Amino acid sequence: MTSKNFVITIAREYGSGGRLIGQKLAEMLNIPFYDKEIISMAAEQSGFTEDFLHKHDQHKHWLNFLSNVFINNNNLPLTDQIYLAQCQVIKDMAEKSSCVIVGRCADHVLADHPRCVKTFIHAPQEQKIQRILHSYNEKVENPVAYAAKIDKERAAHYNYFTLGKWGKISNYNLTVDSSVGIDAAAEVIMVYTENFLKNHQ
Amino acid sequence: MTSKNFVITIAREYGSGGRLIGQKLAEMLNIPFYDKEIISMAAEQSGFTEDFLHKHDQHKHWLNFLSNVFINNNNLPLTDQIYLAQCQVIKDMAEKSSCVIVGRCADHVLADHPRCVKTFIHAPQEQKIQRILHSYNEKVENPVAYAAKIDKERAAHYNYFTLGKWGKISNYNLTVDSSVGIDAAAEVIMVYTENFLKNHQ
Repeated sequence: MTSKNFVITIAREYGSGGRLIGQKLAEMLNIPFYDKEIISMAAEQSGFTEDFLHKHDQHKHWLNFLSNVFINNNNLPLTDQIYLAQCQVIKDMAEKSSCVIVGRCADHVLADHPRCVKTFIHAPQEQKIQRILHSYNEKVENPVAYAAKIDKERAAHYNYFTLGKWGKISNYNLTVDSSVGIDAAAEVIMVYTENFLKNHQ
Repeated sequence: MTSKNFVITIAREYGSGGRLIGQKLAEMLNIPFYDKEIISMAAEQSGFTEDFLHKHDQHKHWLNFLSNVFINNNNLPLTDQIYLAQCQVIKDMAEKSSCVIVGRCADHVLADHPRCVKTFIHAPQEQKIQRILHSYNEKVENPVAYAAKIDKERAAHYNYFTLGKWGKISNYNLTVDSSVGIDAAAEVIMVYTENFLKNHQ
């Protein structure tokens, strides 16, 4: 689409299929897809173990307690160190090649990137519940409450680190209701991206 | 695209070019485009003069005063009578043929329509200001303040009549940052609509 690197960031409600749309997009564009891989790379750079980051990076209450107990050499709370490590990894990825990045406040981290299309995926409640129950590899007893809890954590994480507001229209070039279908949503984002890149060389 | 009527509704920030995108879409799809025409039709049905509706339908403070003075036979405030008349016109239009409708809370009015794609158009502040200054037929001294005032009125109008929140992502199938270009934004909405209609026959 362009000789210069571009990035598509995807923020998403839990159960909306945002991750699947990101994978589909990466496949269509033949570019890397990053999600939890970011955690691994951040862990490598910062010295935290992958398992620790994976389990606790969005559980701020517990981490706030931890960070009050263990402050490292940089005198930064643990949560902030994790976030900063992830920011660096995201910037490195965007520098290295075009890519699709799901979550991790990537739209904010790449706010100054000249070729970054920022998207948000949502879906009606009943569609998210069906996806959580039938497509996700998690056993969830109360999917409505669980989805609300995860989205609350995502919003709190985003709002805390970016001082912005997760899910606010002006953050994103495009927000898509995924009830149109995973492939269709990916196609819509691709059409936007193709046009966007014509003006952002 | 389908033998049954469908509707695309467009809510928009002032200066975002939402009206132009709606016109482009209607042209691409060869279907009617409705905006202020709705006011004319509402006026005909309700007996209000077109000029009165045109000047005052979104100036609620003044209308609230008026409605306290002049209550018609239905015992409804004047603002509510205007809104109800517009709702009926929007429903009649959606019944009559496929169409594009800009503004007028049409996404809410057609909430139960089985083939209605609801969109919201926004743009970065500097782009909106440039469009207001150079493309709109209005002489505006302070475009930043003027745009904020119009959007505040649109939000107040929407929130009052729908009990919802103007510009909330979950209201819309698609929100588009129009800095990608008018034609490109129309193309993106058309691709979404084509896919949407495959699942909503």
